[in-house]
Amino acid sequence: MSQHDDFGPRPGEESVTLPERFDAGLHFIGRLRTPWTRRADCPKNGTQSDAVCTAVVDPLFAPALQNVTGASHLILLYWMDRADRTLVRQQPRHAEGSRGTFSLRSPARPNPIALAVVELLGREGDALRVRGLDCLDGTPLLDIKPYYASTDARPQATVDRAGTR
Amino acid sequence: MSQHDDFGPRPGEESVTLPERFDAGLHFIGRLRTPWTRRADCPKNGTQSDAVCTAVVDPLFAPALQNVTGASHLILLYWMDRADRTLVRQQPRHAEGSRGTFSLRSPARPNPIALAVVELLGREGDALRVRGLDCLDGTPLLDIKPYYASTDARPQATVDRAGTR
Repeated sequence: MSQHDDFGPRPGEESVTLPERFDAGLHFIGRLRTPWTRRADCPKNGTQSDAVCTAVVDPLFAPALQNVTGASHLILLYWMDRADRTLVRQQPRHAEGSRGTFSLRSPARPNPIALAVVELLGREGDALRVRGLDCLDGTPLLDIKPYYASTDARPQATVDRAGTR
Repeated sequence: MSQHDDFGPRPGEESVTLPERFDAGLHFIGRLRTPWTRRADCPKNGTQSDAVCTAVVDPLFAPALQNVTGASHLILLYWMDRADRTLVRQQPRHAEGSRGTFSLRSPARPNPIALAVVELLGREGDALRVRGLDCLDGTPLLDIKPYYASTDARPQATVDRAGTR
């Protein structure tokens, strides 16, 4: 997790001026409840913690939870509402040199939509118990999707962190 | 792909009245170029077509593409701008009975953000050639992320299409 928004761009980073108007709008559908209330406490990614977290869906959207427990895993999309949206190149905390934002999973990006693949442990009312989150308590939830191994799992995928251009 | 928005809810479907105001805003970062100009022509999902498609990033955000070719696979998030956002329960075309929206990958959902895991074939300037898309030509692009097998691949994940409640 980076904290660029508190300090502005660092050397090698590049910010852009975003368009004045948005192209589309989002409705928060609920909130994520996690054990982490400070960024420094968040795990680096969802696989680095066994913590059971909760996705609490607003009553308005709760009917959309029907049948969701048929999935062993879910994709959660959520909104990193504290992220700097202007950075197109940024300096990861533990890397040499800056990198393009789209080569990183940093929350700082033009549309700070984060994605986590989580294990679904159970449902109680409008809340889903899940394992695999890494975000702050209270993070706004945008979407819940069933995870399909056939289309979403690419175990052979590789990332060369050096990049090529 | 469903076309609810053209015809309104079907029997067993449920719509809600969305809040009057949005909670957050999106910037389109580019467009997806695909061979499909009508919904009826789109493949059911990205694995059902070998078509090479293109993600064209706007010049403003193009610096964020640096290093992206280090990844063999990407996650693309895009905006299903024709989708009905009010449906919380919907009737899939080839299924018995209606289901909760969050148990489906239908584009009709409160925040119609679609997700595809694509194979990255190459980059030419501000465009990425990819395989694995299923959407209409001209679909607005929201985000590009590297796919990490360690956090994103769950080949053992299962979905019971009958659901349990």
